[in-house]
Amino acid sequence: GYSQKVMEHFMNPHNVGVIENPDGYGKVGNPVCGDLMEIFIRVRENVIEDIRFRTFGCGSAIATSSMVTDLAKGKTLEEALQITRDDVATELEGLPPRKMHCSNLAADALHAAIRDYLEKE
Amino acid sequence: GYSQKVMEHFMNPHNVGVIENPDGYGKVGNPVCGDLMEIFIRVRENVIEDIRFRTFGCGSAIATSSMVTDLAKGKTLEEALQITRDDVATELEGLPPRKMHCSNLAADALHAAIRDYLEKE
Ligand code: FES
Repeated sequence: GYSQKVMEHFMNPHNVGVIENPDGYGKVGNPVCGDLMEIFIRVRENVIEDIRFRTFGCGSAIATSSMVTDLAKGKTLEEALQITRDDVATELEGLPPRKMHCSNLAADALHAAIRDYLEKE
Repeated sequence: GYSQKVMEHFMNPHNVGVIENPDGYGKVGNPVCGDLMEIFIRVRENVIEDIRFRTFGCGSAIATSSMVTDLAKGKTLEEALQITRDDVATELEGLPPRKMHCSNLAADALHAAIRDYLEKE
């Protein structure tokens, strides 16, 4: 089954949506299930001031994205780059083994958005 | 991309939820992504009078379940058993090839729920 934390973030996900003209944008596809994840960031003085995600992915992907965006918001880019796939699963108090592939999507998209920002600078 | 029909059923899915003490219950897992789908039916005089689904699956799984439950509601058991995976994808005006595995879940769970009912009779 799913942890209480996963259910909470699934039922009421944080930071869903898009940012128009984002400072950084990351989009990754999941090779297992084919789902896509998009993350948008707004950066001010090296800090992630705002972050949004959008996905057609499953409940686990939604819960991990909600958690990853919570973790990244207000962090410096260097701190946010250090958020790992495992951090997210741990904060969510675990995911079923068959759903671990879903949790990769959010962390990967976050890193892609930060790299996109850094390349444009 | 996704068809207009898929987006409509994803944003506003029909027949979401559970039926307490259902007449038939089907639960199937997706070998590709690990997602689960549950379908509950209420049967009166051989007709599917009410049908609900619950899933943690992705947007495509939600859209196909919404469509499958719409198709099955009001049908006889024999008619509902003939609803195929392809019927659902066609009614939704297609799904991206990488998401076809998601559409199998709903039709399979419907058939499992009907078989569960027939075995109990
Ligand atoms: S990716 Fe699992 S049901 Fe669609």
